[in-house]
Amino acid sequence: MKYGYFDDSKREYVITDPKTPYPWINYLGNHDFYSLISNTAGGYSFFKDAKLRRITRYRYNNIPVDDGGKYFYIKDENTVWSPGWKPVRTPLDKYECRHGLGYTKITGAKDGLEAQITYTVPLGFWGEVQKVILKNTSEKLKKIQLFSFVEWCLWNAQDDQTNFQRNFNTGEVEIDGNVIFHKTEYRERRNHYAFYSVNAEIAGFDTDKESFLGLYNGFDTPDAVLAGKATNSEAHGWSPIASHCLEVTLKPGDEKEYVFILGYVENKEEEKFVAPKVINKSRTNAMIRKFPDGKSVDLALAELQDYWSKLLSVYRLHSDDEKLNRMVNIWNPYQCMITYNFSRSASFFESGIGRGMGFRDSNQDLIGFVHMAPDRAKERIIDIASTQFEDGGAYHQYQPLTKRGNHEIGGNFNDDPLWLILSVSEYIKETGDWAILDVEVPFDNNEQNSASLFEHLKRSFYHVVSNKGAHHLPLIGRADWNDCLNLNCFSTNPDESFQTTENKEGGKAESVFIAGMFVLYGREFVKICRHKGLQEEAGLALQEIESMELAVIAHGWDGEWYLRAYDHFGRKVGTHENKGAQIFIEAQGFCSMAEIGLKKATRKKH
Amino acid sequence: MKYGYFDDSKREYVITDPKTPYPWINYLGNHDFYSLISNTAGGYSFFKDAKLRRITRYRYNNIPVDDGGKYFYIKDENTVWSPGWKPVRTPLDKYECRHGLGYTKITGAKDGLEAQITYTVPLGFWGEVQKVILKNTSEKLKKIQLFSFVEWCLWNAQDDQTNFQRNFNTGEVEIDGNVIFHKTEYRERRNHYAFYSVNAEIAGFDTDKESFLGLYNGFDTPDAVLAGKATNSEAHGWSPIASHCLEVTLKPGDEKEYVFILGYVENKEEEKFVAPKVINKSRTNAMIRKFPDGKSVDLALAELQDYWSKLLSVYRLHSDDEKLNRMVNIWNPYQCMITYNFSRSASFFESGIGRGMGFRDSNQDLIGFVHMAPDRAKERIIDIASTQFEDGGAYHQYQPLTKRGNHEIGGNFNDDPLWLILSVSEYIKETGDWAILDVEVPFDNNEQNSASLFEHLKRSFYHVVSNKGAHHLPLIGRADWNDCLNLNCFSTNPDESFQTTENKEGGKAESVFIAGMFVLYGREFVKICRHKGLQEEAGLALQEIESMELAVIAHGWDGEWYLRAYDHFGRKVGTHENKGAQIFIEAQGFCSMAEIGLKKATRKKH
Repeated sequence: MKYGYFDDSKREYVITDPKTPYPWINYLGNHDFYSLISNTAGGYSFFKDAKLRRITRYRYNNIPVDDGGKYFYIKDENTVWSPGWKPVRTPLDKYECRHGLGYTKITGAKDGLEAQITYTVPLGFWGEVQKVILKNTSEKLKKIQLFSFVEWCLWNAQDDQTNFQRNFNTGEVEIDGNVIFHKTEYRERRNHYAFYSVNAEIAGFDTDKESFLGLYNGFDTPDAVLAGKATNSEAHGWSPIASHCLEVTLKPGDEKEYVFILGYVENKEEEKFVAPKVINKSRTNAMIRKFPDGKSVDLALAELQDYWSKLLSVYRLHSDDEKLNRMVNIWNPYQCMITYNFSRSASFFESGIGRGMGFRDSNQDLIGFVHMAPDRAKERIIDIASTQFEDGGAYHQYQPLTKRGNHEIGGNFNDDPLWLILSVSEYIKETGDWAILDVEVPFDNNEQNSASLFEHLKRSFYHVVSNKGAHHLPLIGRADWNDCLNLNCFSTNPDESFQTTENKEGGKAESVFIAGMFVLYGREFVKICRHKGLQEEAGLALQEIESMELAVIAHGWDGEWYLRAYDHFGRKVGTHENKGAQIFIEAQGFCSMAEIGLKKATRKKH
Repeated sequence: MKYGYFDDSKREYVITDPKTPYPWINYLGNHDFYSLISNTAGGYSFFKDAKLRRITRYRYNNIPVDDGGKYFYIKDENTVWSPGWKPVRTPLDKYECRHGLGYTKITGAKDGLEAQITYTVPLGFWGEVQKVILKNTSEKLKKIQLFSFVEWCLWNAQDDQTNFQRNFNTGEVEIDGNVIFHKTEYRERRNHYAFYSVNAEIAGFDTDKESFLGLYNGFDTPDAVLAGKATNSEAHGWSPIASHCLEVTLKPGDEKEYVFILGYVENKEEEKFVAPKVINKSRTNAMIRKFPDGKSVDLALAELQDYWSKLLSVYRLHSDDEKLNRMVNIWNPYQCMITYNFSRSASFFESGIGRGMGFRDSNQDLIGFVHMAPDRAKERIIDIASTQFEDGGAYHQYQPLTKRGNHEIGGNFNDDPLWLILSVSEYIKETGDWAILDVEVPFDNNEQNSASLFEHLKRSFYHVVSNKGAHHLPLIGRADWNDCLNLNCFSTNPDESFQTTENKEGGKAESVFIAGMFVLYGREFVKICRHKGLQEEAGLALQEIESMELAVIAHGWDGEWYLRAYDHFGRKVGTHENKGAQIFIEAQGFCSMAEIGLKKATRKKH
């Protein structure tokens, strides 16, 4: 491999050239605190919600790419370098990045000094821990300066990058020994702050971006680093950052270890301050005490290792194909858990501010991890179902922090409700936990208005039945799985978003894909009814399924393949009669899995 | 001066050190096409609306500051430099930036080569023209490469920086000789594109950001420039840019001149294409033909000079104070016109995407330029008044492109309506154009529902009368002039914006400032009524003004100064009884100008 290789024994991907074709990233964190980190230490952290609780600032689509992250700078005589190559980009004598399960280890070496940084979010910990090891591999005494660096986001990631007339006036920090606190708006209306600590004496600090970097410098040439001396700046407004400066002396062969913590703290309203303007640091102190040294971090890493071993042991494949084993036993399940954790709400392309968790996505993703984490799958199912409307429809997205539906996007994506039947039936298949069907679940998060989860599934099912079009096929609403298929809500106005454009009045477009889905997952609903002894309910549902099959056969079959849809004007989409776009894959897959027309076809053959 | 000086004879501000304490910017353009440009050529362009028609991309709050703009790169042997110092930041032998009225001239010199670039937006022209002069001041033959650079914005500036999963797939360009077209979404639902041309043969071009810069390089070290050779890249998605590469040979003493045009074109739906996929370039060609050479640009600059001379000649001060003359005769009126043009909708701090034109701001700004441009003031008044509600209330902002009220922010800023009385009365005082009062003006842009402008003023006046609180003072609504004084719509939820938070149910806070304003501008309304012969109307209005005066005297006077307000709970704001914030300036200024209590005070003295 040109850029790296898999190390299966350690379950790591090892990158050996920092200049990958695009940043290659890892996702740290499993429950509340999350970090995205690239192979050159670019990226950002957030607490639960990538929009509303962004902890460090990140500039997407930046020049250079992925500029900004959790950086360390080393000043060794007249040379300045970073262990992850970026942001300084001084050529290194050695570079390696190991993306592991829940941690990333970056090693760089230059002129007889080796620096290794392990970034991880320990289990149940509201923070990112960075273990730094510096080793003098030369024959000479080394006196160097080590600088840490993070740039705070002013909490709301969208506001942070647009509303400068306000933001540039709000930044607030507090410095207490070797701990730097970011407390913007904590006094006014926030019950949370962040901190960045190190377990060693510091020679200085910086909290003001311009003082540290210099107005006209990039991340690659901070004034303070070039000077080998922090300016002890205290930010008031503008762009608060946190940087520690450590003076490190290493004899030949010496090794020193440091622990940095980037933490997030919430305090109750009445516990916010211990004295006027002095914030309550007890939770911070407890977090810092947890990781006094490298050994304690190693323990947390071992715990994380165990955690993943347990998850990955649920389903193991032993084949002769190394690549297949690797895929099935490590990286696919890891990917599925990460997708569960983040639900596609943040990446280096998804800016984390335009959407929450998808109703459709979250139900789908769930089937990839339900066998590994059934409890969390159950929790997710209840969260999702709680945003459903009384009529069975659903918000297309919901906010991970508030767990409420996203009003900006709204609903009317008519495939959405059916995915809930899929996730629940898959959950039951993996766990045998039929009792989930009896859990009381609110509609639209209104606790005063709730029904059993079974009732939610029924509403999902009948939402399709109650929303059929001229060909007795399901109305597509704003879109089905294919979000680009805006058959009712096309727009010629470039100033409106496709995603928030509502249907044309009385949108008439129908989806053959949803029809296939209805038949396929409807049968799961029937099985559930039968298991509950609701034979009549099952029979009624089966009738609906059968009429849907007939509708597809009558109006959704093009002769050799399934149509895709009818548009708002009743025109066929995905037919041989068209010049282009004659066949769409979604309808073929789902109608085939639903075996629509199979009986008829089988009859024909005989 | 440390960084520069005023050149009054040329009406220019001259910057002699590129490292100003913050970028010092100029605003180019007067009607439709606008550019913001810093002293190092950073900045961006847009057409009418900084959010919806952003032409070039700009990253706010960037590192380094103000990175991104209309850059030129010169490769002279092994040295790469930029005439504006940035982005390359190679030390220059000479640097000068002249911010003039509607143009900016940047000169840099290095190793016997001088480069001068004049950036301007000619009158009535939908584009920015850049005249480049290269001069060999050395004794040697010079063979250099000149690279131009702009980065396209994908039109909607907000979407452009957030919605990457869509945007990275949409970018489209077309290259035709020495003209580079940016035509993203032109095929689908836009009737506009942009282009970047040069009036000379090119050795190559680039339209893909990554190909030109290199993934891991900043603006300071583009791969193509370092190599001295364009890659002729054609962008498909990602980040389209436009860069020309010219091979230039200059004998000692030689001078060469180039004209680059960054243009914006709109075509009618039926004229968009001349052949499948081939866009209609006739308007582009006409624009390019207008500026075949440097002389034609000089003519446009002379026209611009005349235009400004005429505007500035309306009001001239001749005093012995050089600084006062400079302020009154050049820079204040220039600033006022710019403020008219941009209405504070875009700057290096206002990202141009969070707001449109302010109702309050636009009425206020108008009084600064009405004597220079009465026709445009009239147009602006009608535009503003057209967004007013039937009950006299107003949208707080409106979109410059659509000229419609901004629903996201909404209304209920209760000072807003009164500012319309100010602007109209000032307009009439300057012009004597009483006829403006009879112009039919819609409410909420509904042409079916309109009334005379006079009727709008009356509704403004009575909007205050109909919205009084417990102390007979005007209800403040969401805020008055002081947008931080959220007395009804305070928020403890950090996830909601102060600006879009609505009033508490039945918001009861009252504003003494609006009371002063009502008395002050209400008297202007009375004068207008009298001039129209509406004596009864005038009398009724006067009664309202008098009761307002009485209310202020009774409830708005703290004994030694005017109160500022009553909050939602009926508590006084701005009183000696408070621990802090005992006196606010706004109420003092306006109640004094309105002479509230003057009679009483005068009586006392005698």
